[in-house]
Amino acid sequence: MQFRVRDVAEFLGGTVVGDADAILTGISGITEAKVGDLSFLANPKYISHLATTLATAVIASEAVPDARCALILVANPDFAFAKLVGAYGPKPMHPPVGIHPTAVIGERVTLGAEPRIGAYAVIGDGTVIGDRAVIYPHVVIGGEVVIGNDCVLYAGVVIRERCRLGHRVTLQPGAVLGADGFGYALVDGKHQKIPQVGIVVIEDDVEIGANTTIDRARFGRTKIGAGTKIDNLVQIAHNVETGSHCLIIAQVGIAGSTRLGHYVTLAGQVGLAGHLTVGDQSQVGGQSGVSKNLPPKAKVRGSPAQDFRTALAQEVSVRRLAGTQAQVKLLEARLAELERRLGPAAP
Amino acid sequence: MQFRVRDVAEFLGGTVVGDADAILTGISGITEAKVGDLSFLANPKYISHLATTLATAVIASEAVPDARCALILVANPDFAFAKLVGAYGPKPMHPPVGIHPTAVIGERVTLGAEPRIGAYAVIGDGTVIGDRAVIYPHVVIGGEVVIGNDCVLYAGVVIRERCRLGHRVTLQPGAVLGADGFGYALVDGKHQKIPQVGIVVIEDDVEIGANTTIDRARFGRTKIGAGTKIDNLVQIAHNVETGSHCLIIAQVGIAGSTRLGHYVTLAGQVGLAGHLTVGDQSQVGGQSGVSKNLPPKAKVRGSPAQDFRTALAQEVSVRRLAGTQAQVKLLEARLAELERRLGPAAP
Amino acid sequence: MQFRVRDVAEFLGGTVVGDADAILTGISGITEAKVGDLSFLANPKYISHLATTLATAVIASEAVPDARCALILVANPDFAFAKLVGAYGPKPMHPPVGIHPTAVIGERVTLGAEPRIGAYAVIGDGTVIGDRAVIYPHVVIGGEVVIGNDCVLYAGVVIRERCRLGHRVTLQPGAVLGADGFGYALVDGKHQKIPQVGIVVIEDDVEIGANTTIDRARFGRTKIGAGTKIDNLVQIAHNVETGSHCLIIAQVGIAGSTRLGHYVTLAGQVGLAGHLTVGDQSQVGGQSGVSKNLPPKAKVRGSPAQDFRTALAQEVSVRRLAGTQAQVKLLEARLAELERRLGPAAP
Repeated sequence: MQFRVRDVAEFLGGTVVGDADAILTGISGITEAKVGDLSFLANPKYISHLATTLATAVIASEAVPDARCALILVANPDFAFAKLVGAYGPKPMHPPVGIHPTAVIGERVTLGAEPRIGAYAVIGDGTVIGDRAVIYPHVVIGGEVVIGNDCVLYAGVVIRERCRLGHRVTLQPGAVLGADGFGYALVDGKHQKIPQVGIVVIEDDVEIGANTTIDRARFGRTKIGAGTKIDNLVQIAHNVETGSHCLIIAQVGIAGSTRLGHYVTLAGQVGLAGHLTVGDQSQVGGQSGVSKNLPPKAKVRGSPAQDFRTALAQEVSVRRLAGTQAQVKLLEARLAELERRLGPAAP
Repeated sequence: MQFRVRDVAEFLGGTVVGDADAILTGISGITEAKVGDLSFLANPKYISHLATTLATAVIASEAVPDARCALILVANPDFAFAKLVGAYGPKPMHPPVGIHPTAVIGERVTLGAEPRIGAYAVIGDGTVIGDRAVIYPHVVIGGEVVIGNDCVLYAGVVIRERCRLGHRVTLQPGAVLGADGFGYALVDGKHQKIPQVGIVVIEDDVEIGANTTIDRARFGRTKIGAGTKIDNLVQIAHNVETGSHCLIIAQVGIAGSTRLGHYVTLAGQVGLAGHLTVGDQSQVGGQSGVSKNLPPKAKVRGSPAQDFRTALAQEVSVRRLAGTQAQVKLLEARLAELERRLGPAAP
Repeated sequence: MQFRVRDVAEFLGGTVVGDADAILTGISGITEAKVGDLSFLANPKYISHLATTLATAVIASEAVPDARCALILVANPDFAFAKLVGAYGPKPMHPPVGIHPTAVIGERVTLGAEPRIGAYAVIGDGTVIGDRAVIYPHVVIGGEVVIGNDCVLYAGVVIRERCRLGHRVTLQPGAVLGADGFGYALVDGKHQKIPQVGIVVIEDDVEIGANTTIDRARFGRTKIGAGTKIDNLVQIAHNVETGSHCLIIAQVGIAGSTRLGHYVTLAGQVGLAGHLTVGDQSQVGGQSGVSKNLPPKAKVRGSPAQDFRTALAQEVSVRRLAGTQAQVKLLEARLAELERRLGPAAP
């Protein structure tokens, strides 16, 4: 890539502070940038980097007096940078339009316009796939699955029978949708399998990370709401339902039948017990263990999870605990001394 | 499906309370049920739902006076419902009987009766597979593997060389059996690989979840005992051995050489250190970290894990800690006041 | 295998104490060994087993008077045993030299000497692979990937476009390299995807476990340093960089842009927040949650993580807390009694 600073500002609808004619030849993070690079400052916390970066220009949300580079001012630097990279950066290398001769397409399969189906993809009988599907090599789709338009399924994805995906769904490599939920009944000392006859429903604009697993429902459906984004190695158990626009970070586990509201954020390695309700816009800190319902806008952490401030205060109390215990020992001695001086109480 | 209540009761060997002639056209959970649905009540905790459900009939273990639906009474409603769904519900869409022409079957492979082998399955040299094997597309089985009768291997499963599976073993998509254990010796500042020449042995009636990994032994074997059920994204390290009929929930990790007894339950995200012994029927609460041996019937939680009641009492104590610290501060002041009033002690 | 004790000692450059002519016919762990077996004693903690083992010979680092078996003394028993097993034990069953006719090799692909490429492997356009590559069935390598010499990629591995691997890299089954990092910008209430246009760089002598996921960088690179070993089901987010010779145990999660020094050890299920720096030789205990930078040689545990000794002391304090609270209650009563005896203070 080779642009002038003013070209980039124009593309982003931003304004330039500094040398608008400087030439940009690369992009990078603000701390690793070298001369000729374009970078961005998403978090105002790192504003001091503007005085030291070697970048030729930085996309930022406000001017600073001591910047040693050109600034391109926009409302949302993070997203502006993303737009730029999306337009001019390297692209994923999708399979070409067409169906690779080695793909195995079942009976009664419907494919939309311009499919891109890679080598050794397998699509089961009766499955319906929308327009502009991008199906990488070695994707396995079961029978009677329904997939909307503009979906991207990376290599090694497995979707079991009858699951349903909306439009613009992206599945990273190795994601598994529709494996059996974990359900057994103990009969005569043996765990008898409870058939898992439901499905998984993924609404529009969902992205699911690598090697994440979303189990089919016992009956009915496991549902991921529109616009929700799920990171790698997450476990979503049977009959879970998430609202729209949730963020579920890596290695989270959600037990069966729990329901998330909209805009819920679960940080990495969080565990949620089963049959819970988590209110809209709740936020759960990393590694927390939630075993009770959460109201809307709850902000919790810890295992077991508590209100964020309560948990924090408790951590401080615990850190002071050894001191408290020493103090109690001392009080005990001082009290004993007073008791000694006063002598035995009158009967 | 369309049945009368009495037909279902007959199939299950149960008795009807209420309208035995009502028509059932669907199944669902008790809270989501609509008119015409059959549901079930597994957990007596939810018995109040019988007064409000729209279900036409519910499978339950005891009659209640205010049920607004027909009841089908059986000993184990959960299992009865499972039997019904297993018999009449939708089925997994297994590959048809036969060997897909694209499957690559190695030399000296033995296949039992009625194999169902899907597209692009790969079976290594010298492997022996029992009767009625169901091998989905894109399963990769290494050389000299032994697999019993009636096993189901879903898409994307990988079994490395020489591992052994019993009868009626089910592997959900993406499960990996027999990857190298994690073993290195630090020599001259480098981690030198310790060859992992053992195998994985899976006994009869085991089910293993999606993307779960069970490592081969350093030497000897990693063993999963008969009837044990393992959920998704679980990590079982080299030389671990589990007893029979354990339940291992999602995202549990068990470090090397640890041994579980029979009927052990590990809740989600539990971690077990290596070289431990966990007694029969022990139960470990979610997210717990176990670093010591557990006796039979232990019930522990927390990280580090403690006896369940101890851990609970400790959580209560910690929640009261800020109050305790305020109280100590007050006692200090009151004590200082008494000391002031009594004046200096006589020498 | 059938050897005399003296043959083994010679191969390892060790010395024999006891019967150098005894015949060895198998190998196993010291507690499971039977007559004729060779075993080893890596951890001096288990030295008492030498008095009870049934093994015919044990590789150890020092003689003990009451050993009931021959001893083969070497400096590093663990590694000596590994060398022996590596030389004489069973081997992985790699695909034969050559390219399986079903492998799909893209355009402009460069393969080094003696490739072993299994059935249904897919290699994207413009990819370069070094000498003696071992590529198991069902490996999918994207376009423009670069792979060094002597790499082993087990079944089901997925490497997305443009990633780079050094020499002697081993990827266990199901590992995913180069999936998109988890990055979104909230615009008008929707999470807009931030393109992830960087790559993953794996340096020489790295091993990566089954179903582990290492995300491509937002831009630039996610890097795993030379000689680092990563266990199963680990999540490495975008732009993370590890130093050389780190050990990352199963189910660890490292959030975006965090940097590890050299020889860092992260025990199982550890979580690291994003944008942290972890100093050389730091050690993090199992299940810990690290949310602050760590200096070199830090030794921490807990969630939130603290210095190892501090955390341990705190755990002891908390275990004593109920007692402390009882004691405070008692002190309160004794103090009230003194106050009663002294009567109201003079005004």
